[in-house]
Amino acid sequence: MENNDITTVAHKAKEAFLKTMSMDNETKNKALELIKEKLLEKKELLYSANRADSNNAKQLLEENKINQAAFDRLKFNGSKIRELIKGIDDLIKMDDPVNKPIWQKELDEGLILKKISTPIGVIGVIFESRPDCFIQISSLIIKSGNCAILKGGSECQNTNKALHSIVQEALKEAGMPENTINSVYSRDDIKKMLSLDKDIDLIIPRGSNSLVQFIQENTKIPVLGHASGICHTFVDENADFENTKKIIIDAKTQYPSACNATETLLIHKNYPYINELKEALKKSDIELIENPLDYHKEYSDRILAIKIVNDLDEAIEHINKYGSGHTDAIISKKQENIEKFMNLVDSSSVFANCSTRFSDGYRYGFGAEVGISTNKTHARGPVGLEGLTIYKYKLYGSNNIVDDYTKGIKTFKHKFI
Amino acid sequence: MENNDITTVAHKAKEAFLKTMSMDNETKNKALELIKEKLLEKKELLYSANRADSNNAKQLLEENKINQAAFDRLKFNGSKIRELIKGIDDLIKMDDPVNKPIWQKELDEGLILKKISTPIGVIGVIFESRPDCFIQISSLIIKSGNCAILKGGSECQNTNKALHSIVQEALKEAGMPENTINSVYSRDDIKKMLSLDKDIDLIIPRGSNSLVQFIQENTKIPVLGHASGICHTFVDENADFENTKKIIIDAKTQYPSACNATETLLIHKNYPYINELKEALKKSDIELIENPLDYHKEYSDRILAIKIVNDLDEAIEHINKYGSGHTDAIISKKQENIEKFMNLVDSSSVFANCSTRFSDGYRYGFGAEVGISTNKTHARGPVGLEGLTIYKYKLYGSNNIVDDYTKGIKTFKHKFI
Repeated sequence: MENNDITTVAHKAKEAFLKTMSMDNETKNKALELIKEKLLEKKELLYSANRADSNNAKQLLEENKINQAAFDRLKFNGSKIRELIKGIDDLIKMDDPVNKPIWQKELDEGLILKKISTPIGVIGVIFESRPDCFIQISSLIIKSGNCAILKGGSECQNTNKALHSIVQEALKEAGMPENTINSVYSRDDIKKMLSLDKDIDLIIPRGSNSLVQFIQENTKIPVLGHASGICHTFVDENADFENTKKIIIDAKTQYPSACNATETLLIHKNYPYINELKEALKKSDIELIENPLDYHKEYSDRILAIKIVNDLDEAIEHINKYGSGHTDAIISKKQENIEKFMNLVDSSSVFANCSTRFSDGYRYGFGAEVGISTNKTHARGPVGLEGLTIYKYKLYGSNNIVDDYTKGIKTFKHKFI
Repeated sequence: MENNDITTVAHKAKEAFLKTMSMDNETKNKALELIKEKLLEKKELLYSANRADSNNAKQLLEENKINQAAFDRLKFNGSKIRELIKGIDDLIKMDDPVNKPIWQKELDEGLILKKISTPIGVIGVIFESRPDCFIQISSLIIKSGNCAILKGGSECQNTNKALHSIVQEALKEAGMPENTINSVYSRDDIKKMLSLDKDIDLIIPRGSNSLVQFIQENTKIPVLGHASGICHTFVDENADFENTKKIIIDAKTQYPSACNATETLLIHKNYPYINELKEALKKSDIELIENPLDYHKEYSDRILAIKIVNDLDEAIEHINKYGSGHTDAIISKKQENIEKFMNLVDSSSVFANCSTRFSDGYRYGFGAEVGISTNKTHARGPVGLEGLTIYKYKLYGSNNIVDDYTKGIKTFKHKFI
């Protein structure tokens, strides 16, 4: 069917973007309000679609093709709807992230340059089998004036289709293009998406390391995300026992398979509670691997690599060498060490005296996130509305020509106003 | 020689970055001051290196392998040094672009999130045979706390080598790593550079469309730049004659081969001076091509494509279809039309009532530029210090754990402070 071909979808999304990029905040919020309403109105329909997904997934679970955690994440119920509505409410309250003046400058009399935030364009988002993600990502895309092509995990296909029709109805009723949010369902569409660099401006893949790496290596479209989350916590020599224990247990066990869970614990050799700490971690059902051969490993489980380091410098060096630039923390009472760590560890998020698990768009107050980036350009860390914007320059002249300036008839003022 | 191997160079640059990223403004400015001093002290040495390049290039000119304009751009003389010194002075006066707080937020009591500007990392810059670029780019890289691998046009090799040793001396005397600025000279190094994604964080290619496209297609490192500059000027029905003529002549002829020169003129069908304008342009030695078959063409010469359009909407549609997202201008007296054009044309720079030639880092007041970007992510338009930065998140805690928030024992405040 030609209409569902991803090339056509991408083209329609690009056309839609020429409208959404200048949509006012009121219209975008109206679409978000309607999504909220429809989630409640059509919940039975959503639950029934989700039951179909769950039934299919049950077989996958029995065949050990997915694990219990993945099966649980498929669930779409009243508490998920309440969480989503809260997230959308947060987004509605936020300022419009686009068409905001970043700065303005008088280049010369009658020649005013304005740097203005804008949306990016068409964004391809590939995400795991979690139906709540469909709505979170759609909401961020709508509020930021972008358009998207979503490819959710296939285990959620029925729920995502039902959610997609809700989103499209809401867009239509609010007076926004239906093609603001597009959804594709086949795994082949991911491959095709990578070649559509004329219409797709950014790809945000969430999922396994191998999927993200495959995407990074097979497209010239910019890719925003992270392949791995090798996060560290460094325990300084002056750290106490109780707080250190509490933070590390949270950082490792609160959600062991999350990308922001700590994978490697670095301990200063003079920390007085090394053995006590190890015992406490073992008692919390954490397997410790001392001096592993490979510090690049992401365990995603209740397993923690441990290394005793000579000093803060060695900790920083280790992190910059083996880390993935995601999130790294120091536990220390010495402000000087904290600042040194936070300045010299080249990661998107650097923490002092708290759990690496805080690295998350919702916890950062972004309403939600489309992903967490370990890129060095465009956006780093959890990506919310701000990371979905870029800017343009608007120059307001009064019949100015460059020749006057190169000939020295006029000179630039370059004054911020 | 192993030390000059680009893999080694990139690795040393990455090591240097771990120092430059937290360098204070004073040290960076000191290096810039020393570059200024040394440019004057060693000018005879520079002139002599430049004479060698000019002599080699003379032969290329005679063999028609380069044109007169390219030959002229090779020249490095007193006036070039004066311009460079002025540019460096501007940069020295500018605030440090890194380690600047962008915003800070109280996530909860004793849990403060700061978004702080940082440099990016190691940047590969490929640029044309213009020795002044070597110093301009080096200065921007130093001030922004990044490190660079520069590959200048081979016709400038001797001058670039002399400039590189000046820059490295200045870095050393200022107490910065010499490998902050690295220089490679072989064309093969460009190809090798594209595979070094572990050490190089960004590539900025300047040069021919084919070079930029080759780079975009053959690396997974982010690429910032523009392959082509297909800029438009749209003449609205209410535009006058004299100013319109003046602006278009400047936009086309002030530097016809520049990427920000207007390539296509769109005229509203009701503009009363269509014929007079055409005559005036022809008299200014501009060749007009009416209704060409290919509107994607970049003439880079005193040639201008012309199209009569029915209205503003058709002009906007044409630009979004055929433009390269570089710079597009409207000449109009109607504020409403100006705003519509500037909001709906999806280009990095949108101008009203002035020449497209203003699209340039120096003219925008950035001191200089490393390039002009038509990307939709990271940086758009002329890229100066701001475009060479990114950010990190610093989270200052007081022994906070995520478990308290998921269990509802604590709740987030998310308050900007």
